[in-house]
Amino acid sequence: MTSGRTITVPSLRAFCSDAFERAGLSPADAQTGAEVLSTTDAWGVFTHGSKVLRGYLRRLAAGGLKARGRPRVTSEGPAWGLVDGDSSLGMVTSVFAMKLAISKARDSGMAYVGVRNSCHFGAAGYYAALAAGEGLIGLSMANDIPSVAAPGSRSAVTGSNPLAYAVPAGRHRPLMLDMSIATVAGGKVYAARERGERIPATWLIGPDGLPTDDPSSFPGHSVLAPAAAHKGFGLALLIESLAGCLSGAATTWQISSWMGDDPSRPTFHGAAFLAIDAATISHDLPYRVEQLIDEVHAAPRAVGVDRLYVPGELEWERFTASTAEGVRLPADVVASLQDAAALSDLDLRRYLESD
Amino acid sequence: MTSGRTITVPSLRAFCSDAFERAGLSPADAQTGAEVLSTTDAWGVFTHGSKVLRGYLRRLAAGGLKARGRPRVTSEGPAWGLVDGDSSLGMVTSVFAMKLAISKARDSGMAYVGVRNSCHFGAAGYYAALAAGEGLIGLSMANDIPSVAAPGSRSAVTGSNPLAYAVPAGRHRPLMLDMSIATVAGGKVYAARERGERIPATWLIGPDGLPTDDPSSFPGHSVLAPAAAHKGFGLALLIESLAGCLSGAATTWQISSWMGDDPSRPTFHGAAFLAIDAATISHDLPYRVEQLIDEVHAAPRAVGVDRLYVPGELEWERFTASTAEGVRLPADVVASLQDAAALSDLDLRRYLESD
Repeated sequence: MTSGRTITVPSLRAFCSDAFERAGLSPADAQTGAEVLSTTDAWGVFTHGSKVLRGYLRRLAAGGLKARGRPRVTSEGPAWGLVDGDSSLGMVTSVFAMKLAISKARDSGMAYVGVRNSCHFGAAGYYAALAAGEGLIGLSMANDIPSVAAPGSRSAVTGSNPLAYAVPAGRHRPLMLDMSIATVAGGKVYAARERGERIPATWLIGPDGLPTDDPSSFPGHSVLAPAAAHKGFGLALLIESLAGCLSGAATTWQISSWMGDDPSRPTFHGAAFLAIDAATISHDLPYRVEQLIDEVHAAPRAVGVDRLYVPGELEWERFTASTAEGVRLPADVVASLQDAAALSDLDLRRYLESD
Repeated sequence: MTSGRTITVPSLRAFCSDAFERAGLSPADAQTGAEVLSTTDAWGVFTHGSKVLRGYLRRLAAGGLKARGRPRVTSEGPAWGLVDGDSSLGMVTSVFAMKLAISKARDSGMAYVGVRNSCHFGAAGYYAALAAGEGLIGLSMANDIPSVAAPGSRSAVTGSNPLAYAVPAGRHRPLMLDMSIATVAGGKVYAARERGERIPATWLIGPDGLPTDDPSSFPGHSVLAPAAAHKGFGLALLIESLAGCLSGAATTWQISSWMGDDPSRPTFHGAAFLAIDAATISHDLPYRVEQLIDEVHAAPRAVGVDRLYVPGELEWERFTASTAEGVRLPADVVASLQDAAALSDLDLRRYLESD
């Protein structure tokens, strides 16, 4: 495995933006996409950061993503809106939709915005954090092609359907959870296989529909297990209801894989964004959440545990470090960015720090 | 263990209502409380049905619950409201709040209603189902005194914070999930201890903060573990933010135990209710959810599995059977109802079926 490389956040953002512009996006849309991907890497969430750029560029070149797509509001009311993403970059549609939810929440207290004709939108947490950065509670979620079993099924029934929230927290950075409804991401299964290890029986459902501890069976002969069994499955169906059924988007098997399927065709992903305006409803909210976080930090710790973290705390600490010292990109991300550079006819070395 | 007894749903409802009226509630409020508890038993969710009546009657007698409390709206906007429950029965306040959310959602598309000065509200699913019964997507949640560890803590940090949703589903009964953010309820730990069994290591956190498989340590020397670790913990903090911090309610250790603490003092629980009006946003919603359920039912099954269930399906089947054949109350529920009858000077035998 080649070693990683360091890049400043502005350089990473510039690289992504330049690549998107060369793929035909407007400068504003290119900036939006680059901001999402570079922030995600700055949080240390490398699976959903600039590593995915390469795949988006391929879809943009093939036409499944429209470089000049324009998300638009198809219907709306005081506390809701539906958005047709026009097959534009998932980040462009999602930022558009969350901004609409924020604006409506400021007028009405809260709002739901459903999205159809979107694509993979990266890290759900970004959009939730967008709301929290403006003083609102934000939630974001999306559906995806099935990869997770239902309790009792032996094949995939729902997507890993990400769910994120962020809540303003006074002197602390926002609480921020970004979870999938699967026990673990597929990447963790691959990593265990590479290390030659068995996996906990809660991660995968084997070909007979029963739990398996054999990572080599994935993804050909096993599927991901839902987190906490019926709880994760139940959340998956709530997300599918809000992000797929209510938004008018495709659901489950109607969705195409953004990585695996024909890049010349749209994927038809759905998403949902909710914003609740704390400033309208209760000015105390951030300070009460601040106290809640202080309380968690002060709780008695398990043997061997130095610190208790609230959701998002680790990501915000990495963000601060990334901003100050640059992002140390893992080797797989660097390799992906090299492909992206080749697709864009850009020289990645111009953007990387010299080690 | 004494055997259970059968009671018709109307008789169960009448018993609860009569008991509430004798405790001083208005006939309308008594009916509301009785409807929630008898519906919960009809679903087969006996831990949260009429078994809890006894505890409410004690609080009503001691004054911690106000028999003639009147929930009122303290502030509101187009898509939100805050309700002070005035220490009335949790069911009375919660039905009032969900009806407010439904009404606002019909006007604005969706709404949030936060509640303070409430108490234990029984089964969260009831309020979500109330919205779904009127064609809306409903969500309900509440905070509670801490009983669940955070990842890395060795004591309780959050409540088991119930979260429920219900979604209209066309020809099917609504999708309905009612979950706690703990891996399992404390009752399951007690049951394992009674059977002399060890428990899975995901259920409890022992006195050193590490997982334990010893059910005898609970609740004195161990606490419940959050479902799927950081995911359940993260959801607990979202629920605390919406049901406690935003609503103006008490949070975590400020809340009193509705069972264990001084019954003459309010418990100060918080809750939150959300309603999304499918009829306003997308008429297709129920039919698309109906198809989603059909798809789950048709998925390939694991070895030994006869049927795949969606959330709430089992509860609705039990509800149909309970309505037709009466509810077979477990012995612990009958014993609790006998206490409730004694507190109310009612004759339980008048309500039970003769076996």
